[in-house]
Amino acid sequence: MSKEKQFVKEITPQNEDFSRWYIDVIKKADLMSYSPVRGCIVFKPDSYEIWELIQKELDARFKETGHRNAYFPMFIPESFFQKEKEHVEGFNPELPWVTEAGGEKLEERLAIRPTSETMIGHMYSEWINSYRDLPVLINQWANVVRWEKRTQPFLRTSEFLWQEGHTAHEDEADARRETMQMLDIYRDFAENYLAIPVIMGQKTPSEKFAGAVDTYSIEAMMKDGKAVQAGTSHYLGTNFAVAFDIKFLNRENQHQFCHTTSWGVSTRLIGALIMVHGDDRGLALPPKVAPTQVVIIPIGPAKTREQVVARADELFLELKKAGIRVKVDDRDQSPGWKFNEYEMRGVPIRVEIGPRDMENGQVVLVSRISGEKRIVAQADFTAEINKMLAEIHDQMFERAKQFRDEHYGAVDTLDEMKQFLDEKRGFLLAGWCGSAACEAQVKEETGATSRNIPFSPSEHKSTCLVCGEKAEHTVVFGRAY
Amino acid sequence: MSKEKQFVKEITPQNEDFSRWYIDVIKKADLMSYSPVRGCIVFKPDSYEIWELIQKELDARFKETGHRNAYFPMFIPESFFQKEKEHVEGFNPELPWVTEAGGEKLEERLAIRPTSETMIGHMYSEWINSYRDLPVLINQWANVVRWEKRTQPFLRTSEFLWQEGHTAHEDEADARRETMQMLDIYRDFAENYLAIPVIMGQKTPSEKFAGAVDTYSIEAMMKDGKAVQAGTSHYLGTNFAVAFDIKFLNRENQHQFCHTTSWGVSTRLIGALIMVHGDDRGLALPPKVAPTQVVIIPIGPAKTREQVVARADELFLELKKAGIRVKVDDRDQSPGWKFNEYEMRGVPIRVEIGPRDMENGQVVLVSRISGEKRIVAQADFTAEINKMLAEIHDQMFERAKQFRDEHYGAVDTLDEMKQFLDEKRGFLLAGWCGSAACEAQVKEETGATSRNIPFSPSEHKSTCLVCGEKAEHTVVFGRAY
Repeated sequence: MSKEKQFVKEITPQNEDFSRWYIDVIKKADLMSYSPVRGCIVFKPDSYEIWELIQKELDARFKETGHRNAYFPMFIPESFFQKEKEHVEGFNPELPWVTEAGGEKLEERLAIRPTSETMIGHMYSEWINSYRDLPVLINQWANVVRWEKRTQPFLRTSEFLWQEGHTAHEDEADARRETMQMLDIYRDFAENYLAIPVIMGQKTPSEKFAGAVDTYSIEAMMKDGKAVQAGTSHYLGTNFAVAFDIKFLNRENQHQFCHTTSWGVSTRLIGALIMVHGDDRGLALPPKVAPTQVVIIPIGPAKTREQVVARADELFLELKKAGIRVKVDDRDQSPGWKFNEYEMRGVPIRVEIGPRDMENGQVVLVSRISGEKRIVAQADFTAEINKMLAEIHDQMFERAKQFRDEHYGAVDTLDEMKQFLDEKRGFLLAGWCGSAACEAQVKEETGATSRNIPFSPSEHKSTCLVCGEKAEHTVVFGRAY
Repeated sequence: MSKEKQFVKEITPQNEDFSRWYIDVIKKADLMSYSPVRGCIVFKPDSYEIWELIQKELDARFKETGHRNAYFPMFIPESFFQKEKEHVEGFNPELPWVTEAGGEKLEERLAIRPTSETMIGHMYSEWINSYRDLPVLINQWANVVRWEKRTQPFLRTSEFLWQEGHTAHEDEADARRETMQMLDIYRDFAENYLAIPVIMGQKTPSEKFAGAVDTYSIEAMMKDGKAVQAGTSHYLGTNFAVAFDIKFLNRENQHQFCHTTSWGVSTRLIGALIMVHGDDRGLALPPKVAPTQVVIIPIGPAKTREQVVARADELFLELKKAGIRVKVDDRDQSPGWKFNEYEMRGVPIRVEIGPRDMENGQVVLVSRISGEKRIVAQADFTAEINKMLAEIHDQMFERAKQFRDEHYGAVDTLDEMKQFLDEKRGFLLAGWCGSAACEAQVKEETGATSRNIPFSPSEHKSTCLVCGEKAEHTVVFGRAY
């Protein structure tokens, strides 16, 4: 059997071929391997650790807002899908089916969950009896499967990891509050943790979740101008409650259907991180989600090596105690090789220490983002590192926001949209009459889909970019992953 | 659709019907629901939180010993199973098969992983080229499926959650060191975190993992005298390396097969926790793994209520700041009802505070395990709580160990074994000649299986309990879940 060599010599420049750049970077940075199963990847330790950091932070935010985790079976009986008509139509084409198990053909086929509204709806119908049982606020961390035709590492894989929140409420107002609360947690997390600016808004009917009344999303722009839907939150109304009989005795002692919500983010966030922040030198990881935040590299001639490494180890311990994710690289390779290596892996700060620095009681801090070199006193080391990490986060967010704003236009006609997409790439605000036909025509002629109806667009458009009739909404359009 | 009522009025006493006791407890304590899929349960928040605490502690121990997490596809092509003969024979009967996906029949069936040696072996063959790549030390947290005929909540479910470590090494010595290191981590975790005494030892050939050279286990005794295998660690030799071509260029520049290991514990630990520590009043959770370690219950008449609740809230915050998992129950139910409720849910310490306690600057601590009431000064509150939590852990471990030792005999013949199992239940040390036939006869006549060949038996037996020939090993036998 031949050994697969995933070694990439040079990273293809982004403006030469963005897709090749992406694959080059994730292979060279050792984030993933293709697996022998179609559309499934292996999350190698360096990407899985990013996911662990995402999980830890989101999980804390979910728990702060009263949610608890649980775990539901991944097998969903075929009959469950039939109960919510839009849901089955939306997901049926993507389901894998278990038809045999334990040496026997199953009486009823079992799907592997693409999402768990049906299974959880069934369970909630058993658990919820009275308004006293409400709200039910549960989240699940799990693997899900959607057998996609076109896949792309992290962004769209057959099996992926995610969290799915599922809540049940007494009335619409409470369920809508929850829907918005979780959307805002996602926005805040994307901006303040991943340094990714996002556009919050509502999906158009044709783009909403199969079975939802209303779907809301946060949308991020990649460096090729394309969109990634980075998180969604759905108000499901009573659709699943009716389908699964999730009823309760209300305060007036009458039976009533619950209003439910669901919301999720997935490992596609890893892909978004890479495509928002990476550059021609490789990955660039925002400090809060970087598995290694600081790498310390001892430099200088062999005769001072032992002393310098010993000091590097002390600096390592100092940062570690302060809760910073740090690493010393005292291997034999040249400093230059190491500088390139950690730039490529996106480590936010490189610390250089050599014999002269030892003499002067100083170290050199180098930012992955700005390239800035900062000479700081060893006495201020941890404080300066924390300061620089915070600055790097802010710089990355601002840089990504500036890029997004530069590629975020507003147009009045389809022709203008085509021209913008060809010349500048990016997102476009445009008026939309509300008809599915006009929306479909945009997609057909430009490849762009409606991303969402933003809550705070920079301007409002009064006419539909396709038919010229009165605009019902101002919509963000963009080509999407 | 009818509402399932899982309400349990009374818990069946353990000595009346242990199996019913178990089901009564896990339903009444709201730990799980049966799902509509055969053999699959829902892990409700109170049991999932136990799993989260188990994960957090074990994950830290794995990382301290140099392991990193990764994630591999759950789908395993059928051909992969054929590559290791014992492995396919061991697992084939329990596999669920995906035969259709995305609206098409698959060319090759995909199994849902029962364990991941095959998939991970395939990937390691791509990743490992040189001795410089070794050791590879990876762990995966995942769901796995074994389509079992007989299932039991937590202990044996079709889908369950676990971790599986998979490592590759240059030579046998290094792989065996790893195998033993992980077994000892499991032992230490079981004893010092779950308060479950375990017997470490080696599995007999008929009980080892399908594809392993040697399997080691930790075995725990439940309160009905039956065994639960609480964790396993396997030295796989070069079996999977040969099957999946995991080769490397060694220090002598020659191609050589890796030696691999695997090791795992699962959500069955939740079942073991319940069956080792629970009693006729319900759950009893060891402090380190209890989702709620302390519950504070305000008592006294209505007129002092507000004041008492305010003080209870202060005590709550004090413990919370100290990192203790604490809850205040100021609902309307009577104190007596609450006392029973939290005893049933296994909360280690109940704190009572009433108007007289406020006057005297004291609180009352009540241990779930011993029932001991301790009046302590409010000034010493956190320190006393920490002290009592540590004591409760020790008491629970000692109590479980005493029970185990009282039900752990040694016998010379099959008849003695039968008599012991009928009269006392439990584990038995016995000599064994090493033949599979004698081992099978023990199982047939007594229902007991060899648990393991313990590393430190309390005595050595010289003759086989079945054939009377010279004993090769002294083995622990017991009926098992």
